[in-house]
Amino acid sequence: MKPSAKIPAPPPLEGNHSKVLKRAPGGAFEWAGIALEAYKTETADYKGITRRELVGKRGESAKFHVRYFEIAPGGYSTLEKHEHEHVVIPLRGRGEAQAGCYVWNVGPGDVVYVSPSDPHQFRCPEGAAEPFGFLCIVNADRDRPTPVDGLGACRICE
Amino acid sequence: MKPSAKIPAPPPLEGNHSKVLKRAPGGAFEWAGIALEAYKTETADYKGITRRELVGKRGESAKFHVRYFEIAPGGYSTLEKHEHEHVVIPLRGRGEAQAGCYVWNVGPGDVVYVSPSDPHQFRCPEGAAEPFGFLCIVNADRDRPTPVDGLGACRICE
Repeated sequence: MKPSAKIPAPPPLEGNHSKVLKRAPGGAFEWAGIALEAYKTETADYKGITRRELVGKRGESAKFHVRYFEIAPGGYSTLEKHEHEHVVIPLRGRGEAQAGCYVWNVGPGDVVYVSPSDPHQFRCPEGAAEPFGFLCIVNADRDRPTPVDGLGACRICE
Repeated sequence: MKPSAKIPAPPPLEGNHSKVLKRAPGGAFEWAGIALEAYKTETADYKGITRRELVGKRGESAKFHVRYFEIAPGGYSTLEKHEHEHVVIPLRGRGEAQAGCYVWNVGPGDVVYVSPSDPHQFRCPEGAAEPFGFLCIVNADRDRPTPVDGLGACRICE
């Protein structure tokens, strides 16, 4: 490329081309053009949780999706299970990650792996100073979650 | 589970079960039991870069792998291309992400998507105050990279 021959326009968010989602200035976990979405609509067994789809829903061909979730103080995700795995990496605040009988207190940079079929839930403690925000990576092709009652089929307890 | 009936031992790092990699206290991007590895051994077209395998190399069944890379000031990854996609999410410092003709200056919380076959490279500027550290997520099943000379086949320049 000759110097200053062309300066390409920034690539659009939609499409299977290289692109960058720039995080908002000032430390917020927001990205221009990325909508804040409801966590889910199927059940009501959750509280105070939002989702942003970062990679996988705009034409990208990777075999995984990357999302950013935030749980407000006192909030929690559905206690559920499914065959697909989760990798959760907190970026903001602190929270509880439950998988099977284990409950871990986790914060930025910890890496949570939830194996197939383990009942799991993510929670932000009541009274926490800030929301619990985390990346959640899942297979692009995945089964639907099933809510579980209590701990469900935990191989440690049974 | 009866209260205090059993307190399970922390799960081992190896195996396809739920687990947490706890980041080291004090802000370092290190995780107990996770080795610091050489970036690669096939070529020498890179400088000052290390890798930690976080998820995918210890029995986990997800269709993606999660790694943490760090590039020292003045360092860079190989300028290369491959059919599989990259998602790169900086956690520490700032660096340059090049994909095709685009060069982005990126920092914590930005989300870089490199589409199939785009030549790409990640760099930490000479004189940077700290290393450029980032998560890199790839398909578990992926092709090998090919080094490219210069920008290679860039659809913007050609």
